[in-house]
Amino acid sequence: MDVTRHLDLRQRIEDGRGEFLLFALTPPRRATSTQRAQEIAEATLERLAPLDLDGLVLYDITDESDRNPDVRPFPFLPTMDPAEYLSRHLDRWTRPVVVYRSVGKYTESDLRSWLDDQDPDRRLSVFVGASSREQATATSLTRAQEVRADAAPGLLLGGVAIPERHVRSGQEHLRMLAKQSAGCSYFVTQVVYDVNAAKDLVSDYHYECVDRGIAPAPIVFTFSVCGSMKTLEFLRWLGVDVPRWIQNDLRHAADTLDASFEQALAMARELVSYCRRLGVPFGLNVESVSIRRAEIESSVALAARLLEELDRVRHS
Amino acid sequence: MDVTRHLDLRQRIEDGRGEFLLFALTPPRRATSTQRAQEIAEATLERLAPLDLDGLVLYDITDESDRNPDVRPFPFLPTMDPAEYLSRHLDRWTRPVVVYRSVGKYTESDLRSWLDDQDPDRRLSVFVGASSREQATATSLTRAQEVRADAAPGLLLGGVAIPERHVRSGQEHLRMLAKQSAGCSYFVTQVVYDVNAAKDLVSDYHYECVDRGIAPAPIVFTFSVCGSMKTLEFLRWLGVDVPRWIQNDLRHAADTLDASFEQALAMARELVSYCRRLGVPFGLNVESVSIRRAEIESSVALAARLLEELDRVRHS
Repeated sequence: MDVTRHLDLRQRIEDGRGEFLLFALTPPRRATSTQRAQEIAEATLERLAPLDLDGLVLYDITDESDRNPDVRPFPFLPTMDPAEYLSRHLDRWTRPVVVYRSVGKYTESDLRSWLDDQDPDRRLSVFVGASSREQATATSLTRAQEVRADAAPGLLLGGVAIPERHVRSGQEHLRMLAKQSAGCSYFVTQVVYDVNAAKDLVSDYHYECVDRGIAPAPIVFTFSVCGSMKTLEFLRWLGVDVPRWIQNDLRHAADTLDASFEQALAMARELVSYCRRLGVPFGLNVESVSIRRAEIESSVALAARLLEELDRVRHS
Repeated sequence: MDVTRHLDLRQRIEDGRGEFLLFALTPPRRATSTQRAQEIAEATLERLAPLDLDGLVLYDITDESDRNPDVRPFPFLPTMDPAEYLSRHLDRWTRPVVVYRSVGKYTESDLRSWLDDQDPDRRLSVFVGASSREQATATSLTRAQEVRADAAPGLLLGGVAIPERHVRSGQEHLRMLAKQSAGCSYFVTQVVYDVNAAKDLVSDYHYECVDRGIAPAPIVFTFSVCGSMKTLEFLRWLGVDVPRWIQNDLRHAADTLDASFEQALAMARELVSYCRRLGVPFGLNVESVSIRRAEIESSVALAARLLEELDRVRHS
């Protein structure tokens, strides 16, 4: 694949053009051997090679059980630091990578030196704040945003946007605009299963941007297939609102994975056409929340399918 | 129009076939003169004549301000009794009519004698209970259902189904099944603007029917256009949940009426395809909630458009 054929991710974000596709990975468990981690990375890149992705996303997992008193459906196992996984095992990947940073885990000087080292043509970041007020934080989200503006103003920073939070507060669009003032130039949602909530957020954000005379930043919608009720339970534990009818459909489907694939596709289409109608730039992101082979393969197939929904006219 | 071409409304309900279209009218104000009421009825029938409707719906309006402490956006003006409006002014209409009965307004003997007089091939009814516990009731919904079963077992009785109530309680599907046990053979929703809530209700109802080995009764979804923010406010006052993004779209639309027409059509399509997928029979109903000419004409156009969505293969 020839990278120069692309309007690259950075340009699509900076121009407010959107229409890009990302694929999100969770780094292997921290206990994984170096050799095994390399095998996982190689296998992942091989799976993704046929896809014309605009970039990867690497999550920075924290134990969120302080946020949610319910029993976690899967045990929490610490994962490798995404920046380390990237530098040690994913060097073959030449396109951009969005590296998540749970900023509370890092000291200010660690964050600063990491930012200093990044090439803004190939690296972007999303800063995530503490998952609850109780969590001990080395660096606050606000301070991390200041450090980025100072140390790496050219590195594109994204913020998290959560439609479910908008349902409760009606204020998430204002939080997005505050993040934008603090330097964010795009947003990434958690996994979307409640399209209505996502449309509510896009709509309020859009009209607030219009009122303020601000250009909307691209919103990246994350989708995930779900191959079992256990995965569904995990999604809900993570704070994803799954409408009753979707839960019922998945529970009763002859093939849960196929059903969730179709639902993710339908949701993405609805959001794509809604964003285009409003003129809000968007990206799509596919996340595999499970490590089961069938679910991973279905995620790759979903990404391939979503690419067809995007307006990918080349500007070579 | 040749009525024999049709599978009639009764058969479509009794066979659990659905795929029918109704148009809902509110009778004129009680203060309307006989002559003016006749003119209104004639004009209405003329407007509806080109449509291949399966039946009319006549609402029985009560002052619901005891249910809602907020100021009513439009003043409450008592309307003619639907049964009287029908018998005095709509005798030219030869197809079936679904006559709503706010049963709390009638004594048991009044209800019984009205039921006695109805031809079950041309009349159906929907019984509506009191809108709040505070409302004085001459006959309870339960008693009215018993009277119907005794006096007019052949007259198809419908029940009200409210997706918004399902959002709050998660129990509306069980209420529907209780009404079915009490003789209801179809359901009619209030105006739908929250498709997700409607799908949640259909889904829970469907799977509960499967669990109990009961055939689902047709659910009639009601749609309405909305030509102004005042009408939108009224819909919300009536208890219709309108998602934020739809409110925003209508508020900012170049033409609110056109935008709401497109939204109603999109919602109907989504529910039609969802019900077909689950095998839940359904009907569609168009209600004009305003008396403005443009909104009435748009309602008729919506009904014409919705007819195209139905599977109307003739069995002549």
